Amino acid sequence: MDEKYMKEALKEAKKSLLSDDVPVGAVIVLNNKIISRGHNMKEKNNDPTQHAEIIAIKKATKKLNDWYLNDCIMYVTMEPCLMCAGALIQSHIKKLVYGIKNDKFGYVDSIDNILNNKQNNHIVEIKGNILANESRILIQNFFKTKR
Amino acid sequence: MDEKYMKEALKEAKKSLLSDDVPVGAVIVLNNKIISRGHNMKEKNNDPTQHAEIIAIKKATKKLNDWYLNDCIMYVTMEPCLMCAGALIQSHIKKLVYGIKNDKFGYVDSIDNILNNKQNNHIVEIKGNILANESRILIQNFFKTKR
Repeated sequence: MDEKYMKEALKEAKKSLLSDDVPVGAVIVLNNKIISRGHNMKEKNNDPTQHAEIIAIKKATKKLNDWYLNDCIMYVTMEPCLMCAGALIQSHIKKLVYGIKNDKFGYVDSIDNILNNKQNNHIVEIKGNILANESRILIQNFFKTKR
Repeated sequence: MDEKYMKEALKEAKKSLLSDDVPVGAVIVLNNKIISRGHNMKEKNNDPTQHAEIIAIKKATKKLNDWYLNDCIMYVTMEPCLMCAGALIQSHIKKLVYGIKNDKFGYVDSIDNILNNKQNNHIVEIKGNILANESRILIQNFFKTKR
């Protein structure tokens, strides 16, 4: 089941390539249905907050007309950064499933596991390494073309 | 000078009261000019990412047509949360000036000083406690009316 939704997140990630953005995609799932999708559009829109996760969260809350995503699961192809980890807490999302680790910017496992801080007012379940290889290839190919 | 811009951020904060949102306001300053403003609109828009800081960052990058805010200073009436601290890093903002600390959610001094982590790819200067009392009164009054 995790792989099924991560494949959809990977489809989203590929859309980032059209605007020369780092390919990262996300989908949010509620009751086994995808309720929102997002892909990195930072360069496209000159907006540093336009990460896949933030876009997917905004769309999901709009769809549900509620900022609480406490029964929702986010699938994202790469480990979230600090901003996106914070947005997962803000939206009270239930669970995060991600693809590859992000050694440089990942704040969920790599630099720190910030979501595990007991002082946070919400705890997010975390599962990593789902279709990590597919995401890695996508990102490696992107940076190869940039060189 | 800090107080002058914090007063403008406080004016923004008062706008949040119109939608029953926690009063937090922000302005972004470049070359001694305010280039963007934002206030907390989470409840108004049912969107957990609509914190004052995120809104001000999005507007500033739109205005400059650039996601780098590396010569800009953010003034915000309350210590930023994890998400907003992350957004400050993402936008490469030069400096953060804030009003009161946020014991429950503040990730710049209170829970942690996440911006000081040397593994981050950008360092943000921080100055707190500017017109903190004005911000405190605003927030205390807000929560009194909620009881």
